[in-house]
Amino acid sequence: MANEKKLVEAITSMGEDFAQWYTDVVKKAELCDYASVKGCMVIKPAGYALWENIQKELDKRFKETGVENVYMPLFIPEGLLQKEKDHVEGFAPEVAWVTHGGVEELQERMCVRPTSETLFCDFYARDIHSYRDLPKVYNQWCSVVRWEKTTRPFLRSREFLWQEGHTAHATAEEAQERTEQMLNVYADFCEEVLAIPVVRGQKTDKEKFAGAEATYTIEALMHDGKALQSGTSHNFGDGFARAFEIQYAAKDNSLQYVHQTSWGMSTRIIGAIIMVHGDDSGLVLPPRIAPTQVMIVPIQQKKEGVLEKAFAVKDILSGFRVKVDDSDKSPGWKFSESEMRGIPVRVEIGPKDIAQNQAVLVRRDTHEKLVVALDEIAGKVGELLEQIQREMLERARAHRDAHTYEATDFEAFAKTVEEKPGFVKAMWCGNQECEDKIKEVTGATSRCMPFAQEHLADQCVCCGKPATKMVYWGRAY
Amino acid sequence: MANEKKLVEAITSMGEDFAQWYTDVVKKAELCDYASVKGCMVIKPAGYALWENIQKELDKRFKETGVENVYMPLFIPEGLLQKEKDHVEGFAPEVAWVTHGGVEELQERMCVRPTSETLFCDFYARDIHSYRDLPKVYNQWCSVVRWEKTTRPFLRSREFLWQEGHTAHATAEEAQERTEQMLNVYADFCEEVLAIPVVRGQKTDKEKFAGAEATYTIEALMHDGKALQSGTSHNFGDGFARAFEIQYAAKDNSLQYVHQTSWGMSTRIIGAIIMVHGDDSGLVLPPRIAPTQVMIVPIQQKKEGVLEKAFAVKDILSGFRVKVDDSDKSPGWKFSESEMRGIPVRVEIGPKDIAQNQAVLVRRDTHEKLVVALDEIAGKVGELLEQIQREMLERARAHRDAHTYEATDFEAFAKTVEEKPGFVKAMWCGNQECEDKIKEVTGATSRCMPFAQEHLADQCVCCGKPATKMVYWGRAY
Repeated sequence: MANEKKLVEAITSMGEDFAQWYTDVVKKAELCDYASVKGCMVIKPAGYALWENIQKELDKRFKETGVENVYMPLFIPEGLLQKEKDHVEGFAPEVAWVTHGGVEELQERMCVRPTSETLFCDFYARDIHSYRDLPKVYNQWCSVVRWEKTTRPFLRSREFLWQEGHTAHATAEEAQERTEQMLNVYADFCEEVLAIPVVRGQKTDKEKFAGAEATYTIEALMHDGKALQSGTSHNFGDGFARAFEIQYAAKDNSLQYVHQTSWGMSTRIIGAIIMVHGDDSGLVLPPRIAPTQVMIVPIQQKKEGVLEKAFAVKDILSGFRVKVDDSDKSPGWKFSESEMRGIPVRVEIGPKDIAQNQAVLVRRDTHEKLVVALDEIAGKVGELLEQIQREMLERARAHRDAHTYEATDFEAFAKTVEEKPGFVKAMWCGNQECEDKIKEVTGATSRCMPFAQEHLADQCVCCGKPATKMVYWGRAY
Repeated sequence: MANEKKLVEAITSMGEDFAQWYTDVVKKAELCDYASVKGCMVIKPAGYALWENIQKELDKRFKETGVENVYMPLFIPEGLLQKEKDHVEGFAPEVAWVTHGGVEELQERMCVRPTSETLFCDFYARDIHSYRDLPKVYNQWCSVVRWEKTTRPFLRSREFLWQEGHTAHATAEEAQERTEQMLNVYADFCEEVLAIPVVRGQKTDKEKFAGAEATYTIEALMHDGKALQSGTSHNFGDGFARAFEIQYAAKDNSLQYVHQTSWGMSTRIIGAIIMVHGDDSGLVLPPRIAPTQVMIVPIQQKKEGVLEKAFAVKDILSGFRVKVDDSDKSPGWKFSESEMRGIPVRVEIGPKDIAQNQAVLVRRDTHEKLVVALDEIAGKVGELLEQIQREMLERARAHRDAHTYEATDFEAFAKTVEEKPGFVKAMWCGNQECEDKIKEVTGATSRCMPFAQEHLADQCVCCGKPATKMVYWGRAY
C-alpha cells in the first residue's frame, strides 16, 4: 500500500493549489517534461499520443471540407515579416532570430516562424494568377516559436505544435464563410471528441489577431473558473493581399485582390483537456481521444490461468484501444497508475472473477464499479465508453453553466470576477477604454462577443453609455 | 492540341539533361516550389500528400515493432551540441544559429536541430534510472535544418522533413538487433510500397554517421545510374551514453551505460521515387503510395449522361483513391496532366463507351490501354494496380541489375565508373586511403559493404593488397 499512496500523494489536490495540481498531473501522467532550452517542452509518449489522436480527428474533419496539407519553410526573412504593418508589430517582439548559417553571418537575418501568414502570402503571390487558381485551402501541421517570458507546459511554451490553415478566396463572402466554417469545425471537435463545451463568438478589436479584420474564437471554461481560448479563426479581408500584392485575373479579366483567412488549434488544447476533466487522482480522458481506452489489470496474475484470461479478454475487446498491464507491480499501484493516466475504463479480473465468468469494470470519471459477465463484456464496454463520453460533456457543460454569471453594473461585475471564478456576461458599449478599465480593475478580459447574443441591459456595464454587444468576460490563461 | 503540347514540352527529356528533367518534373507535377529563404522548399499539396502516405505507412510499421512517438525541442543549446566530440565536428559547420529571443541577446546561442541525438541523450540521462525503464524506443516526425551550400528540391535542402528514431537499450546485443531491425523496416518499405529495390549493407568508417560505432544503409540506384542513400540506421554503442552519462541500475544493482541507436528516413526519398520511376511524360507513382490511384476523365463531358456516368464509376471504384477530373479543360490536357502527376491508372469514359457499357483503362507506367466492361471494372482496376506495383518493382530491379558491374583492377574500375553509370562491385582492403583515392580519381564513393558479400577477387581493386570486403561503389546524390 505504500506504493499506491506514494503515487496519489505525489499530486497536490485541486482545491489546495490548482496551478500546482496542473503541474503535478502533467508530470505524473507523463505527458511532458522540461527541456534544456528554457520554456520548451519534451512531449512524452502519453502526451504525444494524445496529440496524434487530435491530429487524426481534426485532419479528417479538415479534409472533409476540402483542405489540402502543405509544408512551408521554418524561417521567415526579416523583410518578409515586415510587409504587413500590424502583423510585424504583433509578432516581432517575441520571435527567435537566426543570424548565422554555419560560420557565416547571414546577409539578412531570419526569424523562426511564430505563425506563417507571411510565408503563405509570399507563396500565394507567386502561385495565384487566375480565378481558376482559387480557392486555395491549405493547412500545415508544424511547430512554431514565440519567445514568451513566462511559460507553462502546453498552455504557454516557447515552442509549440499546431496546425495553421491559410486560405485565399475570390470574394469577401467566401472568405467569411470559410472563417466561420473552420470555427465551427473546432467547436464541434471540442464538444464531440474532447467533451469540452465552448462559447463561439467574435473577439473585440483589442483582442483580435495582428493583421486580421475579424477574429473568431471558441472559449472554454477550466475547472478553476478561468477561461482558455481554445481555437481561433481569422478573416483578413484583403489586407494581406494588398501588402503582398496577391491578385488574380477575374472572369471579366479585371485584376482583383484575394480575400484570406487563417485558423489554428495547438497543443494548448491538451491543457484544456487536463483542466476541464482532471480530478485529484490525475488525468481523466474522454474515451474518443484516449490513446488507451481500456486497461485490463489482472489480479493475482501469478495464479494459473489469470494472465491467459486477461489476454483473452483483451482479444474480446479488440474493437477498442485496449492494453493489459502485466508488469510486476501490485494491482493497487496499477489501479492508481491507470487513474493517473486518465484511462476511461479499467477492467479488473482475478481468480474469483474467472470462477464466476465475470469481470469488474471501473469508470475513471466516477470511480463507479460494475460487475459484468464475460460473455457480455464487449457490448458493455462499448456502452460504457459512450456513456462516459456523453456524461463528461454534460458535467463539463453543467460546470460551465453553473460558473457563468451576469452583471449589469460595474460594482457587481467586479465583485463577481473577484469572488466567483467563471464567465461573466455583461453589456458593452464597444469602446476599448471600457475594456482596458475592466482589465485594469478586475483582471478580466473580454473573451468574446458570442454569436448567441442576449440583451441583459441597455447600458454598458462599465461606462453606462448605450450598449452595442453582450460580451463574455473572464480571467484567462 | 496546343495546350497538350505545351504541358509535355514543358519538361526536358531525361536523355537530354537528367538534372533538368528532374527539376522540371518537380515543378510541373507541382510537388514543390522554391521559397523566399534560399535553399528551403515549399512542399505543395501533391508533394505533401506523398509524404503523408509515406508517414502513414512507415509509422504503422514502426509501431508494430513497439516504437512510441514523442516530440523534442527544435533548439539545441551550444553546450549540449558540444558534448559528443565526433558529433559536434560533423554537424557544427552546417547549423543555423539563433542568437536573439525578441530584442534580447541569448546568454548561450542555440542551433536549430540538424538531428536530435543530443536532445534525446539529454532527456534519457534524466529519464532513465533503472533496467525497468529500458528499452526506450522513441521516434519523432519533424523538420531539421542543415545549412548546405548547394541545394536541390527534396535531395538536398536546408530544411527537410524526416523521422528520427532514438533508442536506448540495456545491452549491446539488443542495440545491434534494433539497428538491423529498423534498416530492414526501411528496406521492406522501399521494396513493398515504393517499388524501389535497395542494397542493404554497412557504411565504411569514412562514410558513417558522426558519433556512430556503425552505420547501416539502404542504397538505391536512380534512372541515371547514380546512387541515392535512402535510409540509415546507426548503432552508437555506449559512446553517447558515456558523453551524456546515461546510466541505469541493473538487476544486480550495478550501474551500467545504455546502448543506443538512431535511424532516419526523410523527404529525400521523394527524390528517389521521382528518379527511379519517372519518364519523359513526368512522374510515375507506385499505386501503394499514390495519393490518387485512379483518375477518371470524362470524354465529351457536356453530353447528357457522361458526367453522371463518370461519377457512377467513381462510386463503383470507391475502394480505391479515385477522382473525377470534371474541370473545363480538354480531355487531351487532362490526360497529359494526370500523366505528369504520375497517377497509376486513368479511366476514359465517353458517350461511345457508355453505349457499350465499357470504359478504357490506361496504365501510366506502360501507356497500355485496356477496354473493360463496366460490370467488371472494380475487379480489373484492383488487379491492374497490383500488377503495376509488381511490375514497377521488377523493372526497377532489372534496371538496377543491368547497371551493376564488377571490376577487379583499378583501370577497369575507373573506366566502368566513367562510361557505365551504375553500381560497381569491387573488393577493398579496408583502408581509407584507397577509398579516398577512388573518390578523387573516379568521383565514386563507397556506397556500402553489402550484407550479401561476394568474393570477386583476393586483392583490393585499388592497392592490390589483400581484400577484406566486397563494396558497392558509385557516384551518388
